[in-house]
Amino acid sequence: MSYMPVTDSMFLIAESREHPMHVGGLQLFTPPEGAGPDFAREVVEILRSRHEVSDRFGRRPADPVGIMGNTWWTPVTELDLEYHVRHSALPQPGRIRELFQQVSLWHGTLLDRHRPMWEIQVVEGLGDGRIAIYSKVHHSLVDGVSALRYMTLTMSEDPQDREGRAVWQKGLGRRRRAAAGPKADRSGGRLPFDPVGTVRQIGGLTGEVLGMLPASLKVVGNVLRDHDYMAPFQAPDTIFNVPIGGARRFVAQSYSLDRIDAVRSKADATVNDVVLAMCGGALRAYLLELGALPDKTLTAMVPVSLRKEGDLDSSNSVGAIIATLGTDLADPVDRLEAIHNSVRAARRVMGELSPLQILAMSAANIAGLALSPVPGFVSHTKPPFNLVISNVPGPRAPMFWNGARLDGIYPASIALDGQAMNITISTNYRNLEFGIVACRQSVPHVQRLIHHLEDALTDLEKAFT
Amino acid sequence: MSYMPVTDSMFLIAESREHPMHVGGLQLFTPPEGAGPDFAREVVEILRSRHEVSDRFGRRPADPVGIMGNTWWTPVTELDLEYHVRHSALPQPGRIRELFQQVSLWHGTLLDRHRPMWEIQVVEGLGDGRIAIYSKVHHSLVDGVSALRYMTLTMSEDPQDREGRAVWQKGLGRRRRAAAGPKADRSGGRLPFDPVGTVRQIGGLTGEVLGMLPASLKVVGNVLRDHDYMAPFQAPDTIFNVPIGGARRFVAQSYSLDRIDAVRSKADATVNDVVLAMCGGALRAYLLELGALPDKTLTAMVPVSLRKEGDLDSSNSVGAIIATLGTDLADPVDRLEAIHNSVRAARRVMGELSPLQILAMSAANIAGLALSPVPGFVSHTKPPFNLVISNVPGPRAPMFWNGARLDGIYPASIALDGQAMNITISTNYRNLEFGIVACRQSVPHVQRLIHHLEDALTDLEKAFT
Repeated sequence: MSYMPVTDSMFLIAESREHPMHVGGLQLFTPPEGAGPDFAREVVEILRSRHEVSDRFGRRPADPVGIMGNTWWTPVTELDLEYHVRHSALPQPGRIRELFQQVSLWHGTLLDRHRPMWEIQVVEGLGDGRIAIYSKVHHSLVDGVSALRYMTLTMSEDPQDREGRAVWQKGLGRRRRAAAGPKADRSGGRLPFDPVGTVRQIGGLTGEVLGMLPASLKVVGNVLRDHDYMAPFQAPDTIFNVPIGGARRFVAQSYSLDRIDAVRSKADATVNDVVLAMCGGALRAYLLELGALPDKTLTAMVPVSLRKEGDLDSSNSVGAIIATLGTDLADPVDRLEAIHNSVRAARRVMGELSPLQILAMSAANIAGLALSPVPGFVSHTKPPFNLVISNVPGPRAPMFWNGARLDGIYPASIALDGQAMNITISTNYRNLEFGIVACRQSVPHVQRLIHHLEDALTDLEKAFT
Repeated sequence: MSYMPVTDSMFLIAESREHPMHVGGLQLFTPPEGAGPDFAREVVEILRSRHEVSDRFGRRPADPVGIMGNTWWTPVTELDLEYHVRHSALPQPGRIRELFQQVSLWHGTLLDRHRPMWEIQVVEGLGDGRIAIYSKVHHSLVDGVSALRYMTLTMSEDPQDREGRAVWQKGLGRRRRAAAGPKADRSGGRLPFDPVGTVRQIGGLTGEVLGMLPASLKVVGNVLRDHDYMAPFQAPDTIFNVPIGGARRFVAQSYSLDRIDAVRSKADATVNDVVLAMCGGALRAYLLELGALPDKTLTAMVPVSLRKEGDLDSSNSVGAIIATLGTDLADPVDRLEAIHNSVRAARRVMGELSPLQILAMSAANIAGLALSPVPGFVSHTKPPFNLVISNVPGPRAPMFWNGARLDGIYPASIALDGQAMNITISTNYRNLEFGIVACRQSVPHVQRLIHHLEDALTDLEKAFT
């Protein structure tokens, strides 16, 4: 048995059938040349043969029923890999639509606490011959950023690599350390941030940070008059800021980084600005259609990199800001400008703070998130922001798993009471991969957002040519 | 809103991620002549078009989160039928084995309390071209007997019937009343009993029954010296009588009623005796293989019909008895005899009781079941019996759903703390359909029981020819 810090156990304690506390991801692969119809089964068999499990993926809560509290991890000597690694199929015609329907259902069920809390679904039956892998892992084991990092470590830039690595495999960490140097550095500057993980980080520092809070508020006092700066709890009430049920919808889509980059350079903005402008435009169109667009703009809690030139310690280089999404503005150019100014103002605030003050400031920004599992909190308080839009760094080159080419890697994050929708974006070589998770009950027709995101990008392209 | 009696809400209150309180069933159908590869999709579309929902299947707990207690049902005006009716597929080669793996996973997840608590999976991809339907419904809505009765009402003896009825459909009850006369009568004598449902029945009578308990114990005092009579809490500790996890295994098999009937008539026993002898023989072989067979015989809680000649009120004609399974006896003939005597002794006890006393006696027999959700109860008390073996009456004739022939209808019941395995048998024309649900963690290799049941039946056939 090993001690379970409260920063792990909080995810077990806050969990209910209304908000499972796991993060997920959907990967799409093209089988290698010459692979037969049994390819998915072969993948299942390789994964089920990986019995040597790392400490992290081989532990479970010592008291799964929770009567004695969640204070200890206990190691599991023998994994039931037939349970953890599941072989599934899509009904005909095996479109992406059928895949999303399955992932929506899988993402809404709780993990078993009597064994290590992760599951993999290997999916065959896609009409185009590809296979999909949906993974879910409890947030008490890893956060979203680490989950994707582990996933990336199983893959290789070499299509001939036939190691068939598994996320839970003992020794995978050594691969990470070997690959750490330049790669970790490169991804360090690209929003390696997970908001729920930050709650964890802040939880670990509570005393220290709470002491800093008044100080940091004083520091930022001067900039708060900046009208571009968004403080928390300025968000309007929306359909996203309600108590939620247990069922989910998941949709996802890839957008070419080249297209986004072209807009970015012409508009003199950042990739992050353009991504937020796409989200803002899509959310405006979506809410207009539902007759549910508030007059006041929606805001998003967004992770940003605050790394300064020459600062090699990336652990203090991210912060949580709140940005406008410009949903009150009909013109895409105005919207992008408002977002750009809002993000810049928030960065300016953060830029004048020490790393610990940044953490304190981020804590103030996401405080509402940490409190959302408290019964009644959501119904009786204004939302601190309307949704989380976050970014997890994925592969920087075309990747292969056991010879199969990775075509997409879509994050599926956590919906919470008061935060009925989450948009998480993963980078994957020359694509940005959007994964949207929403409460099935309170957020209707989520799949429309995919089309609205495309329209919003097209509008931006038109405006900047 | 309508009031939710405690006999419904107890199933919501007792539920946890370790023991979901739903009953399930797996049906196998042969598509009608001329059906194409889209048959499963057509079934999904027919079911999803059944928007007119009955009161029972259209209600959900008014306070799904349970903070205010579960005291009210609230009607749901519009069902999200895409959520309730799911279209699934088996991976290749689509054997029954793959089907059981899927059903095991589906049966282990909790139903969403924010909508009516039932789900249907329509499954394609079986290698032999058949389709499967797995249904689950929360025990607060219906018990296992009623669930199967509703299921049977959607079907017809007429292969030309193309009504495509759904279990939740408004007006299905009228069909029941129309069919009530002779059919209900015929099935009345055939163990229409559900042990968890009996807990419900007893819950509704608590005061009255508790008053009777001393009286009935006095009545049975005389027969307790009968050495064939099994009182509760005489069961040995076994691997089935432990706290359980949330994951399940489900296996099922049909056995010809003609084979069982042949043994029955030659042995001068009842069908129920032969079924218990099959279970006893299979459990002995299974536990021997695991090196986990106790010296003392296992006992089962078994529903029996106690209907007397000319008694037309079937509601008081069932009781819960505890029977030996003869797992201490190597010879199948000795085992069947021990079971026969044990059941007869228990029936004799019941036969001398009034209907209310029978209920009280049954309450005493299944008291352990009602207490199993109490934390610590299972770890610190002897099991009242080793497992529940129950029987739900199914169709008496070959049945069809929208032209598809029903080949099998296998019950999937509830595992509880201290009751890690449940065997439920459904009648289906000339077959007995065994459905076994077990805790995946504490009961290994459940599929072996299927073969051991076959062996046990073969042994009985050999012994009685």
